[in-house]
Parts: sequence; structure tokens; C-alpha cells
Amino acid sequence: VRDVWSIDPRSGQRVRLVCESTSTAEVGEAARAAGRAAGELGRRGRPARALVLRRAAGALEERADRLIGAADRETALGKSRLTAELARTSSQLRLLADVAEDGAYQEAIVTPAQADVDPPVPELRRILIPVGPVLVFAAGNFPFAFSVLGGDTASALAAGCPVVVKCHPGHPETSLLAMEAWRQAAADAGFPGDAVQLVFGDSAGRQLVQDPGIRAVSFTGSLAVGRELHDLAAARPDPVPFYGELSGVNPFVVTAGAARERAEEIGRGVAASFMLNGGQFCTKPGLLFVPAGPDGDRLLGAAATAVAASAQFVMLSAKTRRDYLAGQQMLLSHPGVTTVAQTAGPEEADSYQGGFLAGAALLEIAIGELNGQVVRECFGPLAVAIRYSDIADVISQLSGLQGALAAAVHGTEPEAGIVAAVTEAVTPKVGRIVYDGYPTGVAVTSAMTHGGPWPATTNALHSSVGSTALRRFLRPVTYQNAPQAILPADLRDTAGVLQAC
Amino acid sequence: VRDVWSIDPRSGQRVRLVCESTSTAEVGEAARAAGRAAGELGRRGRPARALVLRRAAGALEERADRLIGAADRETALGKSRLTAELARTSSQLRLLADVAEDGAYQEAIVTPAQADVDPPVPELRRILIPVGPVLVFAAGNFPFAFSVLGGDTASALAAGCPVVVKCHPGHPETSLLAMEAWRQAAADAGFPGDAVQLVFGDSAGRQLVQDPGIRAVSFTGSLAVGRELHDLAAARPDPVPFYGELSGVNPFVVTAGAARERAEEIGRGVAASFMLNGGQFCTKPGLLFVPAGPDGDRLLGAAATAVAASAQFVMLSAKTRRDYLAGQQMLLSHPGVTTVAQTAGPEEADSYQGGFLAGAALLEIAIGELNGQVVRECFGPLAVAIRYSDIADVISQLSGLQGALAAAVHGTEPEAGIVAAVTEAVTPKVGRIVYDGYPTGVAVTSAMTHGGPWPATTNALHSSVGSTALRRFLRPVTYQNAPQAILPADLRDTAGVLQAC
Repeated sequence: VRDVWSIDPRSGQRVRLVCESTSTAEVGEAARAAGRAAGELGRRGRPARALVLRRAAGALEERADRLIGAADRETALGKSRLTAELARTSSQLRLLADVAEDGAYQEAIVTPAQADVDPPVPELRRILIPVGPVLVFAAGNFPFAFSVLGGDTASALAAGCPVVVKCHPGHPETSLLAMEAWRQAAADAGFPGDAVQLVFGDSAGRQLVQDPGIRAVSFTGSLAVGRELHDLAAARPDPVPFYGELSGVNPFVVTAGAARERAEEIGRGVAASFMLNGGQFCTKPGLLFVPAGPDGDRLLGAAATAVAASAQFVMLSAKTRRDYLAGQQMLLSHPGVTTVAQTAGPEEADSYQGGFLAGAALLEIAIGELNGQVVRECFGPLAVAIRYSDIADVISQLSGLQGALAAAVHGTEPEAGIVAAVTEAVTPKVGRIVYDGYPTGVAVTSAMTHGGPWPATTNALHSSVGSTALRRFLRPVTYQNAPQAILPADLRDTAGVLQAC
Repeated sequence: VRDVWSIDPRSGQRVRLVCESTSTAEVGEAARAAGRAAGELGRRGRPARALVLRRAAGALEERADRLIGAADRETALGKSRLTAELARTSSQLRLLADVAEDGAYQEAIVTPAQADVDPPVPELRRILIPVGPVLVFAAGNFPFAFSVLGGDTASALAAGCPVVVKCHPGHPETSLLAMEAWRQAAADAGFPGDAVQLVFGDSAGRQLVQDPGIRAVSFTGSLAVGRELHDLAAARPDPVPFYGELSGVNPFVVTAGAARERAEEIGRGVAASFMLNGGQFCTKPGLLFVPAGPDGDRLLGAAATAVAASAQFVMLSAKTRRDYLAGQQMLLSHPGVTTVAQTAGPEEADSYQGGFLAGAALLEIAIGELNGQVVRECFGPLAVAIRYSDIADVISQLSGLQGALAAAVHGTEPEAGIVAAVTEAVTPKVGRIVYDGYPTGVAVTSAMTHGGPWPATTNALHSSVGSTALRRFLRPVTYQNAPQAILPADLRDTAGVLQAC
């Protein structure tokens, strides 16, 4: 089926035929066009890239009403969330523009010649340069921030790499509108519009992962698809970096003291966090380590009240809903799992009259009964509370956990030793540790890490959010005893960004 | 066959049974021991790591005579080269000790909380932490600098990662001696000796690439073996980074002006470079783009004189010799290839009375006749001169080249435009560009890049030499709103290395 439909998750119905999947020939041409744009981007230099990124931010804002309207219709995430996401996306483009303009990200350094040592040391100048065309897989749950002009595209363009975006089938109309914003930004800035290309269809994505012109891939999505694409990238005749952000259980630990002092506050807070936008966040807290006994009961009581009061959520797609309900079923089939609160039980997984609806759920299990059936991501508005009596059991479970994007710890001052022990146990497992807070909500700053060990990502050395995200698309080159005139401008003696080491 | 023999390349004979290949059970225990050492390394902190690296440098120097004697007997690289290599290895350990002590490599940054924005931005502190145990495959052609206490081990330890070294079969005795140096250094510094483990045997290496405790792999060796190990690392249930440094043709371009002005100097220089230590360098200049006509003839004449005057070389191993002679044969079977000079023709590939001897060769082909049979690495004392009349043909060939570690350009001042065009063509292909010099000889400084696009390496984002080499073994972690006491020392307000962004 080559038709690309825009679907309304609130009705479950196809609304409009947007376009056709990109043909094999067109996909090849997109990669070649990106390749041709690569040289042009290098020649334009950092100020031109900063300018077009800022213009793109403005072009998104100019189209805010249409973009938010289309995205809300295609994802049902709601206008308030989408307004915030669009603002984040624009500010992300501007942050990366600042990074490009500043130039320090290039790590331009010179080490002087030393003639008086044996063997003599030549003059060396090192700089990070763009890797070449980047393939970006857009995500379903962030129609702006991880899509056509999202963080991956912004960081690739800031680094000087053209981008081919494999659009997400959940929001094709929104994608085309964002592309319109890009084209206007490029035209206004006198920048090659071909630096961003769009393709549609899973086979287009698979083809591009293997296209010789593609030099790096970024992906945000499911473990299964991410694994498949990672393996394709690794099996190429010339393997290329594959940056996949895949999944995570995101452990959330509440100490005995925190439960005693702040049971209701934490219960409400964590329920809001795991139900936010139908729990369709890769940073959703999935495993809640909560003390057994009355304080933990109060905490779960507050969370249960919030769950029971929640309306059914409209999930992003039929598949997201089906996978969520299947995951919920699997959890409930564990004999040790009980239901603390539930908006609506799992329905017929394949019917969606009235849209891709699903209810929230808070489940519970004793820590001694945990197994691999429970310790796995269930994408959607659900969390499993793991009741413990001894924090040592929590530490032991955390130490055996698979990788995740984020962990959270709620403690009290007198429990500094416990908080430190939890920190030590989760540090090897995650990319971010949140104290007395909630992991959903990923601030876009220089100090953010959105990453973590497998299966959080396929490459824990990087962050896909923040001003370090462009490091994924850069590689070092060293010029040895080069004439000044031959050097890239940022490596010349006159360059402001050059550091002597 | 589990026996590990020390072989003398000068006689081709086994000299001593050194040990047995490491058994499956012992290999598993080595990985576990490294895993246990990981926590300990973290607790010891940077100054302790710097201390043990410096002690290791000293312990190598104390054993210089024995180490150089053993390595010369096992590799036939010669005492003068091995003396220089040992000095480089010690200075590399000290450089990485300085990097560890300095702490800036951790990129410790803080971005402040912003309460007045919507949504509020939390305080974020980011730092690079060790990835965990690293598997290092030692190289055959650098018994010190890319072996037990070589650059990969030094950078992993500096980063805080324990190391399991898969010893190279070419120098087992040298490896055990280096391990003795490590044990003494660790004892002297009160450092856990288990932070470095040795294993022997190809199956041990393959087993460890797949061991769940190994978190990253570095490898220096052939394309075939590197590809196999890369694929194993990528196919793990939890893929880990594989940093392979594999091969390269290392193009060497001489402009018309440079040939006219400096034919003899460049001819002698490049011959010395491609024959250095039997051409057994991954940075050996393999493809020499030399002008057609009398200036180029003079250049090749000077190189031919050097080749003809060279004695046969003792190759590192029977396999290195066999592969070299087979590569030479394949080149000579190309109808366009002619021999400019040769020390000795290819002999019976499987006989080596008197050691693993092989002669140097300088071959020649017209640029119009180049094909994939010629444009491939031939590891050993051989180069192919590619004669050109139009520099545009050189640019075109360079643009189609596969990745390499280094390129070199010899030009003159009035040819700045040509040198710039060559630079532009090779930049996407290599990790280092050398001007008016020779690519063999890799200085160990902050600005060095020893890396490059496939098949130079499996991951072009990094350098395996210099003070940035430890970046391969580090990943970022962010602490969000963390209490000061919980933070790693280098992220606290009082830390000298913390930068506000």
C-alpha cells in the first residue's frame, strides 16, 4: 500500500490522502540531493547556518495556528501541549543556531611544532567537521520536537550536515506543513532548500539506512524497529553510526522518609507524570519503587485517585493503543500483579469505535515477585508500583536493571546515605537522574543528557537533546603542517575559536 | 591448538611455548574481574588513576632492556625503532595521566535553574563518566604502543575503565613482560591490579566481544578480522561501541610544481616512508599520485634507487608476509601495472627459510587504468605510483576513494589553488592531512586524529591516538536538581573543573 493517509486518532478514521510513499527512485534522488547540498553547506559557513536555523524557528512560529491545528488533529495530543512543543522546537532551533554561530563546538585546537625532540613533533590543528548527509527518523509522539524541524534536524544542520527526514506516518500533514516552513526559511535566508529532504514510507527508511550517501542515522521510536534499523546500519558494506533512542522503564524510587513526609504530593505528582499525554513519553516513570506499609499506601492512594479521575486517553495510533493494551494484559497476567486503580479495563484490542481510546492503570507487585515480565517498558498511561520493605532490595533490583533514559529519586535530607546508594546503583544504567522531581519534561540546555545505555539508546556516548546533540554528526580532522591559506577559517591563527593546547 | 608460541620472525621458528590460550571459563572470569574493578576505579578518583599511569610509564622504562629485547626477538622491528616506540608508550601513559589529573576531559558543566520560564527549567549538571570494562585488541605491528600498556589501555584507564587486553599472537612474551610492569606499577601505587587483565587466543577475543560485562571494544588490525568483530559487537543483545582501526590506502599527492622543485627529496622521502619497518604501518602511503613526464620520472628514479638499495625486510609474521606477497601478486596481475623497482620478486608464499623475508616494490600505473584491484591496501613495503597529466583526474580519483587514516600533499606556494582543491577532495575521506611531509609517524598530542571514515576505522567520530582518545570510553550523565552532597566531586559548586553554561 503506497497511500499515505492522515488519520484522526479521536475518530480512528482516515481523514485525507496526503501523498504516496516515496518511490525507490525518488528515495535515491533524495539522498543524492542531500549529498550535493553537503558541499554547499560547508561553503556557506556557520553564520549562514545560524541564520537559516533562526529563520526556520520564525517560520514555524508564523505558521503556529496551522501547525498546531494539523498536529492536534493527527496526534490528539491537545493544543496546549502542542503549543508548548512548538515553542520548544523553535527555541531548540535558536539554541542550535547559537551553538553554530559560537563555533566552540568544533573543538578547534592547535598543538605547536616541537623541533627539538626526537622524533620532531609537527604542528597539528584539529577541528570537528560534518560527517555528511544524516537520515532522521521522525517520532510519532513529538510531531514538532522530534520531527521534520526537530532536534535531530536542528543539530545536524547546525553541524553542517544535510538531512533526509523519514516522516512519521502518524502526522504526514504536519510534516508537509513544517517542510513548507523550511522552504520559506531557506528562501528567505538564501540557503539551499535541498539541505532538508522528506521521504514517506517504511521501505523508504530502510532503503536510506543502506544508501551509500547517508553518513549517519538518528531514530526515535520502538525497540523492535530501532533494533531492525540498527542492524541494517551495522551490516552495510561501510557501517555508519546509528543513534537510536528506543525505550526505557525509567525507575522511580521513593524512600521511606519521602513517603512519610510527602506521600500525597508524590502520589499526585507521579500519577500526573506517568499519565501525561497518555503516558506516551520515552521518559515516563514506569517502575515506581514505593515502601510497603501505610505511607506507601497513602502515596498510592493519592495516585489512584488521580488515575480514577482521569478520562480515557486518545492514543497516537491504532498500533500504539494495541501495543499498550497488550502490554497491560501481559502485566496483569502475572500472578503477583494487582490493580490499584484503572480508568477502564483492556478492551477489544482491535476495535476503536470513537477513536484510539485507552484507560490509565496503576498496578502493584511485591518486590520479591519481580521478573522480566514486569520489568519492561509499557508505552502508555500505566505504571507498576513495586512495594519494598528493605531499601537493599531496591538497590539490588536497580543494579540488575537494563538501561533507561532517566531515573528519579525522592528522599529526605537525613536519608542522604540512601539517596547516595540509589544514585550509585542507577548511575551505570541511565543518562539522567532526577532528584525530588519527575523525569518527563526534558529541558533543552547544554547540560541535558537524553540518552543512556541499551536499550535506552543504541549509543550511550551521546545525547539527542541539548546543545551537545550535534556531536553525533561531527568527526575530527587534523591538518599537519598546513599552510595558513589552506586551513579552514576556524583553524587559522586569526580564528577566534582556536585554542592552543 | 591452545599452545601460544613465541616465534622468531628472523628464523621463522618457534622459540618458546609461552602459555596456553585462555580457556572459556578463564575468559569469563577475566571479564568479571574487570567488572569488579570498575567500581573500585571510580572510587579511587582521577589522582589515583594519574598516579598509576605514571608508575606504569616508569615500570616500562625500568624494564626497557628486557622489553625491547623480547619485542625485537618477537617482531624483528629492530632495537632503534622499538626504543622509540617504548619511549612513545611511556610518554603516552604520562600524557593520559595529565589528562586524567586535569579533569577537563569530563566536560563538567552546569546550567542554572530558571524558575521564571514556562515550563520552569531545572538545574542540570552534566559530566562524562566511564562506560565500564573495555576490551582492547592489541596490534601486531606495535608491540608496545598498541598493546598491553599502549594507547587504548592508557586512555581507557585514564577514563576510569578497567581493561581486558586480548594479546596479539605475534608478541606473547613481550605482553607478559608488560603485564609484569603493570602489576608492579599497581602494587607501588596501591591500585587494583585487576584493572588490567590479559587473555590469549582468537576465541577468547570473540568470546569477550560478546561478554555482557564488556562495555566497549577497541581493535587495531586487519579489515577482515575487524569486520568480523565489529559485526559480533553489533549483533549482541545489547550492542556496544566497537572502535576498529582497520586499513587504508593513504593517498600521497605530488603536484607538478613540487615534482619540479623537489623530485629527488620527495622520492627519497616517500620511499623511506613506505618502506619504514617493512611498510608495516597503517599510515603507510600506498597510492602515490605523481606527475607523468620527466619531473615525475626523476622522483620515481630517486625512490627506485632507495628501493633497490634496501635489504629484504623481515615481516612480522608468516601471515603478514603471505598476505603481502599475495597483494603484490594481485597488483602485478593488473595489465596496466609495471614494476619501477623491486628488491626481490614474490617468492613461494608458503616457504620462509631464513625467516619471514619479503622485498620492497615500487609499482606504477597510468591514472586512466586505475581500478578497484589497485586501489586497496597492500600492507608491507610497497607503493603504487599513479602517473597523471591533469590534476583534475587526481581530484576525481580522490573524490571516489574509500576512507583512509591520512593523506599527504606536496605542493608549492604558487599552487595554493591546487593544494586547496586536493584538500577539499580528501577531507571527506581521511582523518589527517599532511602537507609537504609523510604520513607515517603519528605524534601523540591533543590535536592528533588517528581515525577516519570506513574502512580506515569502524567509527570516524573518534581518534585512537592523542589526548582525545579517552572520549571513546566515556558517556554523559546528567544530574537534575541534585543535592550537592550526592553529586560527584567534580560536579559540586566547589569543583575546579565545573563550567557554567
